[in-house]
Amino acid sequence: MPTVFGDIQSGNCYKIALLFSNLDLAHDWQEVLVTKGETRTAEFMAMNPAAQIPVVRLDDGTVLTQSNAILHHFARGTALAPQQPLSSTRVLEWQFFEQYSHEPTIAVRRFIQKFLSMPADRLEQYESLEQRGYAALQVMEQHLSHSPYLVGDDYSIADISLYAYTHVADEGGFDLARFTGIRQWLARVECQRGYVSITDYS
Amino acid sequence: MPTVFGDIQSGNCYKIALLFSNLDLAHDWQEVLVTKGETRTAEFMAMNPAAQIPVVRLDDGTVLTQSNAILHHFARGTALAPQQPLSSTRVLEWQFFEQYSHEPTIAVRRFIQKFLSMPADRLEQYESLEQRGYAALQVMEQHLSHSPYLVGDDYSIADISLYAYTHVADEGGFDLARFTGIRQWLARVECQRGYVSITDYS
Repeated sequence: MPTVFGDIQSGNCYKIALLFSNLDLAHDWQEVLVTKGETRTAEFMAMNPAAQIPVVRLDDGTVLTQSNAILHHFARGTALAPQQPLSSTRVLEWQFFEQYSHEPTIAVRRFIQKFLSMPADRLEQYESLEQRGYAALQVMEQHLSHSPYLVGDDYSIADISLYAYTHVADEGGFDLARFTGIRQWLARVECQRGYVSITDYS
Repeated sequence: MPTVFGDIQSGNCYKIALLFSNLDLAHDWQEVLVTKGETRTAEFMAMNPAAQIPVVRLDDGTVLTQSNAILHHFARGTALAPQQPLSSTRVLEWQFFEQYSHEPTIAVRRFIQKFLSMPADRLEQYESLEQRGYAALQVMEQHLSHSPYLVGDDYSIADISLYAYTHVADEGGFDLARFTGIRQWLARVECQRGYVSITDYS
């Protein structure tokens, strides 16, 4: 069975846990903590030269990296990966948006606030990311205010990708109170078969 | 025929020009310049609320965003989009790496140097991105020193995604002299049928 190397408190790693739970896919989980420098060891970097988690190792030794690419790998052929060409493109649009505009603002603020406890030398960065983080949430809200999921009428890996850091955005100082569409969508994700929360996973 | 809204000097937009030229796909190009605020107009943001280029509009009015998602949309079913599952995952790994680790360092330094002419208030950011940019190039070099292309033995949209900003990395102050694998790979991309350079396109 596949082995996931990651930190469940990282939204990027939690994406894999959520997908595997949705699909009821057996796996091992090996904890690798960024905050303890464990992605920078020679052993880990032999698996992933980019020194990032999550990494998934298959039984034959094949190593997969990049959370959203891993979602595609395991969701391929299931109902969570839309087959229709335009829907497939839409999934990718949301996932690239997530890695470029959403994660680098919302996840980074959460990391500074929750895991680093707001050190003085990161406060300027923390402040500077607020506006861009809210802009990313507004892009999601604009879509989710008239659509149940990010792509069409069904739950997909696009939702997993964006749910991961959005549902803990408050831990990065973002207030979701005014984002009604997002909050209703979060609830829909939480009703999916096999849903597991970022805190309950173990 | 599709209309591309973009600035050819943006590597993200150039990716689309290179793919369309490789595939000999007829298209219109409508110039939209970030530096003139043209992605922030109401008209443009009605197409793309994320206010980013490139955007592609199809004949039926469908709007596509996110450069790497657009590459998938048009390359699907062609030799530039590997079909084998693991190869398909590898393409995505490289493209997510590009948007998360490569573009935000190499393209941002190029933007500060080439388009903003090094304003004093961006110099600290410019300096801070040097190490991470070289780390991204080193990840590519490690792979390309023993592989002709990023995924397997053939040119694919993964190469287009990474070529775009790598081949003009010098414009962001990166010296490719010691990256032999990368330089040989750049030359291979430039030998592809329909290759067009970022400066020759018009």
